[in-house]
Amino acid sequence: MRFHTRKWVKPEDLNPNGTLFGGRLLEWIDEEAALYSIIQLENERVVTKYMSEIDFKASAKPGDIVEIGIEVVKFGTASITLSCEVRNKMTHQTIITISNIVMVNMGEDGKAKPHGKTEVEYVSKRLE
Amino acid sequence: MRFHTRKWVKPEDLNPNGTLFGGRLLEWIDEEAALYSIIQLENERVVTKYMSEIDFKASAKPGDIVEIGIEVVKFGTASITLSCEVRNKMTHQTIITISNIVMVNMGEDGKAKPHGKTEVEYVSKRLE
Amino acid sequence: MRFHTRKWVKPEDLNPNGTLFGGRLLEWIDEEAALYSIIQLENERVVTKYMSEIDFKASAKPGDIVEIGIEVVKFGTASITLSCEVRNKMTHQTIITISNIVMVNMGEDGKAKPHGKTEVEYVSKRLE
Amino acid sequence: MRFHTRKWVKPEDLNPNGTLFGGRLLEWIDEEAALYSIIQLENERVVTKYMSEIDFKASAKPGDIVEIGIEVVKFGTASITLSCEVRNKMTHQTIITISNIVMVNMGEDGKAKPHGKTEVEYVSKRLE
Amino acid sequence: MRFHTRKWVKPEDLNPNGTLFGGRLLEWIDEEAALYSIIQLENERVVTKYMSEIDFKASAKPGDIVEIGIEVVKFGTASITLSCEVRNKMTHQTIITISNIVMVNMGEDGKAKPHGKTEVEYVSKRLE
Amino acid sequence: MRFHTRKWVKPEDLNPNGTLFGGRLLEWIDEEAALYSIIQLENERVVTKYMSEIDFKASAKPGDIVEIGIEVVKFGTASITLSCEVRNKMTHQTIITISNIVMVNMGEDGKAKPHGKTEVEYVSKRLE
Repeated sequence: MRFHTRKWVKPEDLNPNGTLFGGRLLEWIDEEAALYSIIQLENERVVTKYMSEIDFKASAKPGDIVEIGIEVVKFGTASITLSCEVRNKMTHQTIITISNIVMVNMGEDGKAKPHGKTEVEYVSKRLE
Repeated sequence: MRFHTRKWVKPEDLNPNGTLFGGRLLEWIDEEAALYSIIQLENERVVTKYMSEIDFKASAKPGDIVEIGIEVVKFGTASITLSCEVRNKMTHQTIITISNIVMVNMGEDGKAKPHGKTEVEYVSKRLE
Repeated sequence: MRFHTRKWVKPEDLNPNGTLFGGRLLEWIDEEAALYSIIQLENERVVTKYMSEIDFKASAKPGDIVEIGIEVVKFGTASITLSCEVRNKMTHQTIITISNIVMVNMGEDGKAKPHGKTEVEYVSKRLE
Repeated sequence: MRFHTRKWVKPEDLNPNGTLFGGRLLEWIDEEAALYSIIQLENERVVTKYMSEIDFKASAKPGDIVEIGIEVVKFGTASITLSCEVRNKMTHQTIITISNIVMVNMGEDGKAKPHGKTEVEYVSKRLE
Repeated sequence: MRFHTRKWVKPEDLNPNGTLFGGRLLEWIDEEAALYSIIQLENERVVTKYMSEIDFKASAKPGDIVEIGIEVVKFGTASITLSCEVRNKMTHQTIITISNIVMVNMGEDGKAKPHGKTEVEYVSKRLE
Repeated sequence: MRFHTRKWVKPEDLNPNGTLFGGRLLEWIDEEAALYSIIQLENERVVTKYMSEIDFKASAKPGDIVEIGIEVVKFGTASITLSCEVRNKMTHQTIITISNIVMVNMGEDGKAKPHGKTEVEYVSKRLE
């Protein structure tokens, strides 16, 4: 799994108990899954269709740095399935894991549309 | 299921395609699950432990009003399991469903702690 | 008065003294008044025209759950007048009251437009 | 009346109809009233106690610049009463007016406390 | 230099160390530079092109009031160069200074466009 | 230069002209510089001291994915100097560059403190 995006846990991200608000974390994950899919599918119209069960294994406190890892599980015809792990950057302790996030590739008509991709591509390759 | 909290989908809640950002919706759900649990368990220290699979059935557009419904599935010893449905207030079309959200009752030491509750209570009753 | 929407007071909602920022509370009320009017008038183009005097009776602290109650005072020809009370969900202590909030029903041309409503309706009834 | 703070109406400030969200405007006003009072009373613990009726005279659209004017109406023993006008910076068209905003000076014990001020002071004078 | 816009440092503006987040401060400055330019150039399409070196001289803590000062350094053909100082309103201690912020006047085609201005103008004069 | 954090440009990040708000971009950069420094210096108390001139070379539109690259320029005794480039993830077009961002390592007393680091370290190595 490759970890890219990092977040610095700031006061605006906390729940009233002073730890990272779970809803904020889910927001970060959904954004990361969306942009990862857009990069892979080369299509800006991608929507979240499904997330498998979510385990909140640990929390984070203000000042912690968390990093979000995404991996492709499967390329479908009009979808891509990802797995996600968020962990503490400094300790590598797992904060949350989601085994399957299904993102659907949409056409201009708002309907699922085949994307023609079958494997992970690197943007640097595409730009060569 | 009882629907309480309502949200008005505003530009700040949108993804770049102009529909409700999924991450924002998950944030709303997590907040609702937390506050519902706090009300039932009469304890402010409640954390999200687990969410079962999430189905994104439909989206919402700016100006839509969505309402969030929560129902108790089960009272555990130190936890409460909820189910959640978010729907469009005007059409009752389902937007998202989550069958099981497990919230854990925490003690001051940050560990799970029995809450002693076995059924849904109404605040108005408690205040009588 | 019926109380629907609930908010969990989080660090992002506080003033520098550590209590609920009054401006945030007014934002929540304005949103609730708008969406309540949209539901009743079945028109998405509704604007806030007037609020009568506002009494800040108590504050709220992080972790508190507040609920927002709205009641119809009067149906005008092209407007609806609401009253609002925000209270602490757990203690029912009143936080703020506003006797009259006038919302105006707008047409596509941006001008006030008769809405034809004379009494509170329930969405569940409309959908029967 | 002196106008200081200016805001640039951005997409994050809009309601779903694409005009300035009234709740955001009220949030801006409450912040301005608070900081103006803090400057005058030389006390950081100031709370909003009351606002007289609010007239929403016009709206604003994205890209508009609004400026917020505050004037002292009266110095009370433990309070200060302000009036407020928000207008479009480029046209001076009035957007909203509030005749009386009562801010209370608080002591460390969270109770109203005399502030000893009787007239508007300028910080530059104090620092001479 | 004239100081207009004021901000009240709230919990949502803090970094995890509990002082004003530098990124928030830069956001405030960029907004102020943009709106100041729009006022002077009488054109809503203005973009930030360049900032000279930025010195973070002091920080701010929750409850502080900061004010943002802008001054015109130079009118270019299709640009305006500003300088900026942010200071603590109560003590006049400097928080940050930027000597040159270049804002470019854009035409409808998204290209730089001469603005025809050569000196600071006051809106009140224009409206006479 | 290594690019880690990615952002999806959403409506909440736009200026009124519908492109990425420069202030938001500066906020993202400051956060990335701070967390990168915290990782390298193994100290949570790090503050932004200085940024060299900033060139806004291109903008971004909603739906674009931007990535933020950071590189160490120099380790000082109590500071670290970074360079930063933000680019469009899909096209690798440069959006902004900053040659020198000086971050200072602080002690518990709020004063600069030697950090003892002289080269880039990887967290995975530290955790071996």
